[in-house]
Amino acid sequence: MGRTGIAPLPLLLSRVLAKDIVSRIDVPPYDRSAMDGYAVRAEDTFKAGKFEPVELDCVGVVNAGDVPRMKIGKEECVQISTGAMIPGGADAVVMVENTERSGKRIQVYRSVPPGSNLSKQGEDIREGAVVLMKGDLLTPSKVGVLAALGLTKAEVFAMPEVHVIPTGNEVAEVGRELRKGQVYDINSHTLASILRESGCVPITHPVVEDTREALADVLGKMEGADMIVLSGGSSAGERDVLEQVISSMGKVIFRGGQIKPGKPTIFGTLGSTPIFGMPGYPTACLTNGYIFLLPAARKMARLPPKRDVVGSFPLAKKYAATLGRHQFLTVRVENGEAHPVFKESGAITSIAHADGWIEIPPNVDIVEKGTMVEVHFF
Amino acid sequence: MGRTGIAPLPLLLSRVLAKDIVSRIDVPPYDRSAMDGYAVRAEDTFKAGKFEPVELDCVGVVNAGDVPRMKIGKEECVQISTGAMIPGGADAVVMVENTERSGKRIQVYRSVPPGSNLSKQGEDIREGAVVLMKGDLLTPSKVGVLAALGLTKAEVFAMPEVHVIPTGNEVAEVGRELRKGQVYDINSHTLASILRESGCVPITHPVVEDTREALADVLGKMEGADMIVLSGGSSAGERDVLEQVISSMGKVIFRGGQIKPGKPTIFGTLGSTPIFGMPGYPTACLTNGYIFLLPAARKMARLPPKRDVVGSFPLAKKYAATLGRHQFLTVRVENGEAHPVFKESGAITSIAHADGWIEIPPNVDIVEKGTMVEVHFF
Repeated sequence: MGRTGIAPLPLLLSRVLAKDIVSRIDVPPYDRSAMDGYAVRAEDTFKAGKFEPVELDCVGVVNAGDVPRMKIGKEECVQISTGAMIPGGADAVVMVENTERSGKRIQVYRSVPPGSNLSKQGEDIREGAVVLMKGDLLTPSKVGVLAALGLTKAEVFAMPEVHVIPTGNEVAEVGRELRKGQVYDINSHTLASILRESGCVPITHPVVEDTREALADVLGKMEGADMIVLSGGSSAGERDVLEQVISSMGKVIFRGGQIKPGKPTIFGTLGSTPIFGMPGYPTACLTNGYIFLLPAARKMARLPPKRDVVGSFPLAKKYAATLGRHQFLTVRVENGEAHPVFKESGAITSIAHADGWIEIPPNVDIVEKGTMVEVHFF
Repeated sequence: MGRTGIAPLPLLLSRVLAKDIVSRIDVPPYDRSAMDGYAVRAEDTFKAGKFEPVELDCVGVVNAGDVPRMKIGKEECVQISTGAMIPGGADAVVMVENTERSGKRIQVYRSVPPGSNLSKQGEDIREGAVVLMKGDLLTPSKVGVLAALGLTKAEVFAMPEVHVIPTGNEVAEVGRELRKGQVYDINSHTLASILRESGCVPITHPVVEDTREALADVLGKMEGADMIVLSGGSSAGERDVLEQVISSMGKVIFRGGQIKPGKPTIFGTLGSTPIFGMPGYPTACLTNGYIFLLPAARKMARLPPKRDVVGSFPLAKKYAATLGRHQFLTVRVENGEAHPVFKESGAITSIAHADGWIEIPPNVDIVEKGTMVEVHFF
């Protein structure tokens, strides 16, 4: 998982730095004005006041991008723009608001100490300074920081490749004609989407039969994979087969028995490769995808934990939960209320219209209408 | 802005549907079992009880994916897996937990009404039903819904193309050697990143000089563009030039005078093309990018407003704000406190270490240490 690569600036957004970024330049690269006004020798302004201006000679103009050739002498000044280079001899800028001009003569109505209204070369970033660190996530602002240093590329961690393997004798690939007794593979596509949103690259596979031999065969080819996610196995028999195969080739670490939906969820390892067995039912697969797979995928992609967007809403109608199981209930937020949209774990419409989910602890059986619930948005 | 195109399933995540999705199939496509157990004629179980089982003949097995050939007669049943097709004659499923088996004889300890533990064909989605609507954002769950219908592609709205044009005589493109008096173009890269995260395609341009002629020339070539974003113009002169050019070719709608940072921000239109003039200073450009450009870009991309992730934290130190201007202050969240990281609008380090921003209303001058502030995360 230490694979890295060089990516160009336009592709660096949302990637994770594999190396510290050391500045090769001073920022700003020259003393520059922070204001529109006049570059001055500060000491020439010390006697200036609101009612008693001092008068200076304006000996030139420096705009942003210009390289000033002049040098300011005693009681001289230069008109300067924000961002422009400070001319030799000047050590402060007087804001234009504090001046009055008649021809070449500038009245200054405020005294300024040395260093006023300018940024010194290297004040922001010194050449050789570590500006961003290995492990930093490149947000828009950090992409901007790379540009500030003039960089056109950076070394980032490779995105983890996650194998998504649908299982089940009744599962057909999208685009094919359904045979009798078949349903389309949904879970590969929801799981691949969750993985994409989590900084991973999903690699999808054809449907694998729910037999010990077929599962062992496909898992046997996965050596060195970053992560494996199987989906399928809603029946007790299928679940057991997968668990046996993982046990025999690696290790089962936990099962989702005490959560609802999610009873069939299995997590384990094959060598150093994490492996998830997700429920076959699409709603169960989706909520378990958000709850278990997403944090694991983000961690593997070295992304910070997802900042959970949570809103508090009254429950739109009474809901009877299952005592003894920690329940995840999909809801839609409409007119300021949280409406349960869960029909049954097999229903597509349970997920088509869901905005997020609420959690119901194992010791709660009835959630009354109007109870404030925390909605975790997808 | 009504341009649409067909995209394949793996590229549909985060896109917006341009057409209603009508199901061509029933979901489920056949009566199927929702449990592991036995498919029965419900009426045969009516006399069953916890202590007085009824006994049925098991005449076969149906696994998921099988097409059952048998038909259940009186006092017969068939062993069935979750997801498997219900055989002819059966109208309910008894859960395996409520049975006991000895050879071909099955003891049933619970009566079930017709329809128990099975999903009827089309119960979830009927052929011809509108399942997703034009304008729906394709989240992982909605991508799953498309797969459930067997679709391999869908018609979506084109992503808006936004021209990002850096201006300023002192601005140099990344990758070039800096000449004296020059700084690197940062804003094109932060703005392009914000646009990418907002469902738009940024088109970046070379640096344009801050003159009336150069600006008019490049804007004259933008007819029919979806949106234009210029950045630069930190000095009063540059700002005025841009405003004059937009006024003469189109219309200025607002200026950011009363916010800090953001005084130079301009919004207008050229024909039907929205145009933003963003501040030249990187911190100002970044925060104004989040505050003004991001919502406009998402709206243009037909995405719902961003769900703002906000956290409440005590301010780590006293901050003196500017009376009369609505201020956006970049902060870093560390050890449960919000630390102002704003040095000055020109400083890169003001944005390199920021996690988000807080707002300070115009009538506040001092925010005391420990005041609870709402941090809007980038």
